[in-house]
Amino acid sequence: MSDLDRTLADVAAAVDEARLWRLHMEMAAFGATPRGGVCREALTPEDIEARVLMAEWGAALGCSLHMDELGSMFLRREGTDPDAPPVMTGSHLDSQPTGGRFDGAYGVLAGIEVLHALNAAGIRTRRPVEVANWTNEEGGRFTPGVMGSQVYVNPDELPRMLAVRDAAGVSIAEAMVAVRAALPGARPRALRTPVHAFVEGHIEQATLLEESGNQVGVVTGIQGTRKFRITVTGEDAHAGTTPRRRRRDALSAAVAMVSALERMAWDREDECRFTVGRFQAFPGAPSVVPGRVEFAIDLRHPDDAARRRIGDQIKPICEALAGACEVSVVEPQAADTVWFTGAVFESVRASAARLGIPHMELLSGAGHDARNMAAICPSGMVFVPCERGISHNEAENATPADLAAGTRVIAQVVTELACG
Amino acid sequence: MSDLDRTLADVAAAVDEARLWRLHMEMAAFGATPRGGVCREALTPEDIEARVLMAEWGAALGCSLHMDELGSMFLRREGTDPDAPPVMTGSHLDSQPTGGRFDGAYGVLAGIEVLHALNAAGIRTRRPVEVANWTNEEGGRFTPGVMGSQVYVNPDELPRMLAVRDAAGVSIAEAMVAVRAALPGARPRALRTPVHAFVEGHIEQATLLEESGNQVGVVTGIQGTRKFRITVTGEDAHAGTTPRRRRRDALSAAVAMVSALERMAWDREDECRFTVGRFQAFPGAPSVVPGRVEFAIDLRHPDDAARRRIGDQIKPICEALAGACEVSVVEPQAADTVWFTGAVFESVRASAARLGIPHMELLSGAGHDARNMAAICPSGMVFVPCERGISHNEAENATPADLAAGTRVIAQVVTELACG
Repeated sequence: MSDLDRTLADVAAAVDEARLWRLHMEMAAFGATPRGGVCREALTPEDIEARVLMAEWGAALGCSLHMDELGSMFLRREGTDPDAPPVMTGSHLDSQPTGGRFDGAYGVLAGIEVLHALNAAGIRTRRPVEVANWTNEEGGRFTPGVMGSQVYVNPDELPRMLAVRDAAGVSIAEAMVAVRAALPGARPRALRTPVHAFVEGHIEQATLLEESGNQVGVVTGIQGTRKFRITVTGEDAHAGTTPRRRRRDALSAAVAMVSALERMAWDREDECRFTVGRFQAFPGAPSVVPGRVEFAIDLRHPDDAARRRIGDQIKPICEALAGACEVSVVEPQAADTVWFTGAVFESVRASAARLGIPHMELLSGAGHDARNMAAICPSGMVFVPCERGISHNEAENATPADLAAGTRVIAQVVTELACG
Repeated sequence: MSDLDRTLADVAAAVDEARLWRLHMEMAAFGATPRGGVCREALTPEDIEARVLMAEWGAALGCSLHMDELGSMFLRREGTDPDAPPVMTGSHLDSQPTGGRFDGAYGVLAGIEVLHALNAAGIRTRRPVEVANWTNEEGGRFTPGVMGSQVYVNPDELPRMLAVRDAAGVSIAEAMVAVRAALPGARPRALRTPVHAFVEGHIEQATLLEESGNQVGVVTGIQGTRKFRITVTGEDAHAGTTPRRRRRDALSAAVAMVSALERMAWDREDECRFTVGRFQAFPGAPSVVPGRVEFAIDLRHPDDAARRRIGDQIKPICEALAGACEVSVVEPQAADTVWFTGAVFESVRASAARLGIPHMELLSGAGHDARNMAAICPSGMVFVPCERGISHNEAENATPADLAAGTRVIAQVVTELACG
């Protein structure tokens, strides 16, 4: 057995399943909902409480705290080479408004547990190890999501993101004042400061692991996405007096569009994810023919060519079915599928095999901060099962054993890359 | 020329087109929108301002003000026989959220102008003349509409209607507190107090008069209606990770229902009015498969049998297309077609002929308070053209000359019936 193999065995053995579970339960207290979930939207008082707890944990573990201009936090455990870019792990502490205890939190708390394990095993790495908490991954209060990592790799977007406002009119810049006040000891971290490698732990949010009896998912990549906002404009009219031939019924046109788009996106393999998540008619009175409908499409597909082909048909189909109405189709967001290759992916796969943990390779259907980090450093992800795949839901659940198995893999990946 | 003929000629001659137009412009200031329309939903501060103006006008005209328990207002001009039930005209001052300056307001203001004309011509009638402002005709803020006249003729429904709440949770009973405070001089009017006859002026909200070059519509009746509220319940799910086969997508099911219902209701004659005016997906986040959709159907048809046949297919079609979702279909409101016959209808037709106003008989596509009043007294309606039939829309328009022509007919009908 080599020194490295022994070190990797040591750090995995030092991961403590019970301590990791306690970290989750302590964190879940912030924003806890009566139905057992979490409401901890980005930069709310609950999110700030969670940040302060993370900072206290980091201090107790001997780490320094760094924070960038969008509030993303980094707990830093120094290595022997102070100039080497760090190996980073982590995810996000913010949640959906009706979210669960594990989505995002798991990746951060697995990182905290890795720090515990490194300390307990007395391991000194060459590179620093950092645990990240990315600001506003969920994008519920402030749109878009995965914002912290996006700005970290694209600093030019900072001013635009700081100006984003929530439904109550509060901007991120305004909300950041309380974050800074709550974390006075945080040192400034420049955006795009080099990172050697990034590995993110997360619950799967689907059922492949559970159905196949695997404990760890070696994530091969994150499927690409295209988002569309469609506005159909007709004319408000009286429901009782306006004959069909005189109507410019935006609801009727929008329903025809969605029907046709669903047929167009249908695939036998059930690989394409086509979702109309928002759909609303205006003015919305029962006796008024709607003069306007707004709806949003979330399109995802692992295959870039297929997603491009399907997405490119959305606008022409909507235009062909507009009838007496007008339609506008905008695409505020698009990303190709990211494939995780290289050092992090290989290390995750090798670690799961070395530890004898049942594992499989899978593609992430959901977006994650690792997608953004892949633009500046080798990146990868470790998935663990969540009960029945339920996520973005207060009923979200996971087992202590599965969470620990994933954390042992993360601990080995971080240690291997930080020692290299 | 008989005395009655001379009196009818006098009252019609005393209708002042310019004054009537001013009444409209003054009233349209309350809830005026930047696009030239009116937002004056029932029992809002804007509606209360409109009510106070009506009360002030009534006082200046020597009328007493009466108000029933749902807030419907009656300006009363006494006749020589204090015990005779009144001849009533009027309509409603509330509007759709994006409504126009004439829908409803015209009927009330034509009534005010009739009071002006009776005073100017020095006419004493045997019966009292009353001008009504029915509460919540539109039914946008509080469902159902034509509520004031419905409760007036069915007092048993008062408790249920007082408990109806708007989207913000405010009940009608609560909203009535401010109405009473703003109109301290109003005397209580018992529901179902006898009325001798009711005539309602209204814009046509369709294009038959405009297209045929007629200035007055002698309304033969009001087509029947059925209203439905449909709730489709599935399960919230992650848009990126949930395959089609595992979704219980309420939006997808609801769109299939609306498509099928539109096909079912289609008729070559374009007589059936099938409208989905409300349609909303919940939770409404772009990346969440909607677990719930609510939509509303407004179905109208002059033929009772056809309307029954079409309406009875709505529930089975929704159930057949629910797929993995559940669906509930409720029908909170239904009314058969009402035919106006008797004294009011005959008097409207005779007056239009006597005044030499180009007129035609037509069926109302929209519901009106006269439908309810027909249950307790001879009732009828006078329509005037509105530009391009546009109504329930801020662009609603009508000409001073057409409004005055209709008001001359109403003045003669009211005078003839109140002298009889």
